Amino acid sequence: MNLLEKINDPAEIRHLSRPQLKQLADELRAFVIESVAQTGGHLSSNLGTVELTIALHNVFNTPEDRIVWDVGHQTYPHKILTGRRDQMHSLRQRDGISGFPRRDESPYDTFGTAHSSTSISAALGMALAAKTKGEDRHAIAVIGDGAMTAGMAFEAMNNAGIHDDINLLVVLNDNDMSISPPVGALNRYLARLMSGQFYEAAKNVGKSVLPAPVRELAKRLEEHAKGMIVPATMFEEFGFNYIGPIDGHDLDSLIPTLQNLKHLKGPQFLHVVTKKGQGYKLAEADPVLYHGPGKFDPAEGIKPVAAKKVTYTSVFGDWLCDMGAADKRLVGITPAMREGSGMVEFERRFPDRYYDVGIAEQHAVTFAAGMACEGLKPVVAIYSTFLQRGYDQLIHDVALQNLDVTFALDRAGLVGADGATHAGNYDIAYLRCIPNMVVMAASDENECRQMLSTGFQYNGPAAVRYPRGGGVGAKVANTLETIPLGTGEIRREGKSIAILAFGTMVAPSLQAGEELNATVANMRFVKPLDVELLKRLAATHDALVTVEEGSIMGGAGAAVAEAMAAEGIVKPLLNLGLPDQFIDHGDAGQLLASCGLDAKGIAASIRQRFSKDEPRLVVNNKQ
Amino acid sequence: MNLLEKINDPAEIRHLSRPQLKQLADELRAFVIESVAQTGGHLSSNLGTVELTIALHNVFNTPEDRIVWDVGHQTYPHKILTGRRDQMHSLRQRDGISGFPRRDESPYDTFGTAHSSTSISAALGMALAAKTKGEDRHAIAVIGDGAMTAGMAFEAMNNAGIHDDINLLVVLNDNDMSISPPVGALNRYLARLMSGQFYEAAKNVGKSVLPAPVRELAKRLEEHAKGMIVPATMFEEFGFNYIGPIDGHDLDSLIPTLQNLKHLKGPQFLHVVTKKGQGYKLAEADPVLYHGPGKFDPAEGIKPVAAKKVTYTSVFGDWLCDMGAADKRLVGITPAMREGSGMVEFERRFPDRYYDVGIAEQHAVTFAAGMACEGLKPVVAIYSTFLQRGYDQLIHDVALQNLDVTFALDRAGLVGADGATHAGNYDIAYLRCIPNMVVMAASDENECRQMLSTGFQYNGPAAVRYPRGGGVGAKVANTLETIPLGTGEIRREGKSIAILAFGTMVAPSLQAGEELNATVANMRFVKPLDVELLKRLAATHDALVTVEEGSIMGGAGAAVAEAMAAEGIVKPLLNLGLPDQFIDHGDAGQLLASCGLDAKGIAASIRQRFSKDEPRLVVNNKQ
Repeated sequence: MNLLEKINDPAEIRHLSRPQLKQLADELRAFVIESVAQTGGHLSSNLGTVELTIALHNVFNTPEDRIVWDVGHQTYPHKILTGRRDQMHSLRQRDGISGFPRRDESPYDTFGTAHSSTSISAALGMALAAKTKGEDRHAIAVIGDGAMTAGMAFEAMNNAGIHDDINLLVVLNDNDMSISPPVGALNRYLARLMSGQFYEAAKNVGKSVLPAPVRELAKRLEEHAKGMIVPATMFEEFGFNYIGPIDGHDLDSLIPTLQNLKHLKGPQFLHVVTKKGQGYKLAEADPVLYHGPGKFDPAEGIKPVAAKKVTYTSVFGDWLCDMGAADKRLVGITPAMREGSGMVEFERRFPDRYYDVGIAEQHAVTFAAGMACEGLKPVVAIYSTFLQRGYDQLIHDVALQNLDVTFALDRAGLVGADGATHAGNYDIAYLRCIPNMVVMAASDENECRQMLSTGFQYNGPAAVRYPRGGGVGAKVANTLETIPLGTGEIRREGKSIAILAFGTMVAPSLQAGEELNATVANMRFVKPLDVELLKRLAATHDALVTVEEGSIMGGAGAAVAEAMAAEGIVKPLLNLGLPDQFIDHGDAGQLLASCGLDAKGIAASIRQRFSKDEPRLVVNNKQ
Repeated sequence: MNLLEKINDPAEIRHLSRPQLKQLADELRAFVIESVAQTGGHLSSNLGTVELTIALHNVFNTPEDRIVWDVGHQTYPHKILTGRRDQMHSLRQRDGISGFPRRDESPYDTFGTAHSSTSISAALGMALAAKTKGEDRHAIAVIGDGAMTAGMAFEAMNNAGIHDDINLLVVLNDNDMSISPPVGALNRYLARLMSGQFYEAAKNVGKSVLPAPVRELAKRLEEHAKGMIVPATMFEEFGFNYIGPIDGHDLDSLIPTLQNLKHLKGPQFLHVVTKKGQGYKLAEADPVLYHGPGKFDPAEGIKPVAAKKVTYTSVFGDWLCDMGAADKRLVGITPAMREGSGMVEFERRFPDRYYDVGIAEQHAVTFAAGMACEGLKPVVAIYSTFLQRGYDQLIHDVALQNLDVTFALDRAGLVGADGATHAGNYDIAYLRCIPNMVVMAASDENECRQMLSTGFQYNGPAAVRYPRGGGVGAKVANTLETIPLGTGEIRREGKSIAILAFGTMVAPSLQAGEELNATVANMRFVKPLDVELLKRLAATHDALVTVEEGSIMGGAGAAVAEAMAAEGIVKPLLNLGLPDQFIDHGDAGQLLASCGLDAKGIAASIRQRFSKDEPRLVVNNKQ
């Protein structure tokens, strides 16, 4: 009998017997494997949360009780059990369901999560709101051990621990992994907790070898010690009641423990140990490979790819090794994104100059600043969307002191399947307003390498933005040559219209330029902008068009508009770029096209605006 | 004999005897009081670090050894001892020395600090750089207990703890205070450490009442317990060697302890207890009042001010109470800025709806988001410069979910004496590129109140920016009326030139408009921009001028330029605002004038650009 098929609402789980729940777990796990094999998506983490998901929905009265899943990529079992089983085939596809929890997708998705370490803050807000409103609901944050290393999780723990009258439960889902294996003191600490040393030692003190009266004394001493010397764990120091570690794949442990915790007031902390990839041997063996696979055959597993595709990430990884070999001052820094940022080979070759600082973007940036003070040349590899976490540090610690830090901004622009939470749409706007910053946008793979060298050689803060995945397929030269600071280049000479293209938009702009016989410039630098080139183009054309894969608001087009104003250039201008809205997940190419940012769309927008018949028509991307 | 007068370099401190050092401490303390009384500045914190400063420079070989002072407002003793005694009269004044450490001011200022909690990250970067370069220097972070609550301090501790071969010392300067009294579990924990309970209990276990053989057993048990059950303190869990707490005003404790620590490898943690305001009775009694006083007579102390001046901060504080009384869904959230943000009265009247979350801007924003999910209406009071710390949370947790959170952005624009580190120059640029945001800039006190009501009633994320200090002195009406969303207003009808002014720039623009007979609009909304008003003004004037107290790059002027491009408006445009450079401390009015942002400067820039004789001249603020 298939139980899973009958579950359309978690309330139905609450009627199942323990053996039935175990059967459900098996079915759910099989469904997850099959489903992800068909759509691609996150796998290892979801196999790790099967039992925890069942236990939480079994014990708590969802959606009245609020579960906030940190990072949210481990919520496929949750989605399947909360009425979205039949939509899993559309996961992460355009108009399909999201790979992360979304408030507008289901009442069971109480908080949108995708960046890490937000769950305790959100759940605490919910718990205190419930108290304020006199409602008796629970708020539960489920957070991984990787996510616990980010500062904001500690900020939330520190704040939560003083509220002793709230219904807050933090479940630490400890699998000793984030995407990459975790680093840092906290993980060592958790490993000690998990090894049992801790608790077993505490329990056994004074037993075994001692005669009875002394044993009694020892017991009293032990209690005295426990009460007075130290509370049991760090989490208790923060005011939480700590329970654990317990086996997160054992429903017979999970359910009774959660039932007990449900009746306790004040901040509760449950330490659960799970295994990424649990129940699927291939994923257990290599959870990193199975972290976020594409489609694959579950029976055969992920096939090794014959020739590695050149991506911007791999261009960065190669450059980092080459520049690292050429300049011993180079150090590479990543906030827990060794694989995603292409730093595996760099770590192998230069372990002494490789720093994975954990999920800690704020620290990563200021740590780089400290190193730069001593004459090293740090390269911080970070996704555009995650640099938002280190924004103040970039301003206050790097740019203000004009320190020599290079930021390699991967995943700039639309990211496709991960959707709005991970979109790198804002970096141009939020970086170019900061004094001293140099901001570049790569139009192809080879230029990306040149720009990285340029940023590295520039004695101050510089950022190079490049998109997820591959580019136009440009051959990447083996050199470390640079581009003169603040210079663009004309890529096509045309008439009447000059297209000023930035980064990834150079290629489609060239096609559009071909169609319209327009001039096309690859501007290369958002900042400093090539104002001389701008003036030349303005003087020799009837109208200017800017195109960028980033927010129009405050973006590179705005930089051109400002420069025109500053130079007193009065000329028709059309800004094309990403509209002022959050753009959902889907195929990145399709999404760009829907924003009018493919060759066809660019040409159409230009025609629509500048056609002689309709000279004042407004384009799609109007604000 | 005056010792202080002879110290122009900390090396000279290293030859003094212990009694001489104590004398020096007395002289230094007296000098700090006298100096701050004359210039204004930070007092309480600097009186707390007199002995610690002497001890650190005495024991360590500065500037070869690096001291990073967290937050940096407690570095007056450090400045006085490192050759800047004679410049203290120019503190925080234009062209004078900064109130914070600055790398370009002295080789002893190893890292610019002003925002909190950056010191451990920077010092760790320095320590690892020294290791990489084979240099034997020490890196020392001095951090307050308030600053320890920010997440990035924990990120740094977590990362530092795994490096067991570095010369890193973290000195926790524990005075149980940030600016406001601290809140949070960590502070409770430190209080337990300080009370001595902790260590005394550990030491005394098994002593006194027990007969000798049992005492011996107890001792062994104790050692067993210490080694196996738990390391002594949370800081040791993070891989640090913890020493303390010791008296931070006792050179006889400080100096030998630091000397011992100097010879230990690996991350060291020294817990020092100091008293804010130490040695100046009035400051000891009220360290908050003496946190950052203006000029005062040291003999008499700060005089109570007869009539409280109306500042934007007090306008906010009054509004918060009034709206809180009118709407029970309102909750007020501050990241440790009760006084600075004007929330003292709100806390008094609505303690159950007041949340000081500690120095934790990231958590503050997401915590607000969690509350908004449950139907509460959070108001986050935060300085423009500190919201940079919560930028990702604003994007990912608030704006993306279109949650109903109001941000009251104090200290927007230039802040005067605090200088570039605290400048609120970027919020317009970094906020308006985010979808769903409403962004308003208040032109006077009454409008500020109206905008706060408008943002509060708007069912989504909204920010109201207002400057430090007072405004034009507008009478503040007692009502809770709102402004129609996205509407500006014409304040003066003129000819030829239309000035589109934002926020604080409305008043000087009106004066400039008078002089030039220009039209002046108070745009009120940066986003949504009043495009209808813009079109009307463009249609009826020869040229448009934007004026804002914020970065020109990406700012409100850029928003106008984008809207012109989107609407196909081709018209001369001049953007006035803050130039693309960090602006040092000084009198805010003078600084604005130097940027051409007073009435005279605005008129001059407009004349220069649009004079018939020199039609294409470029203004000062060119990029």
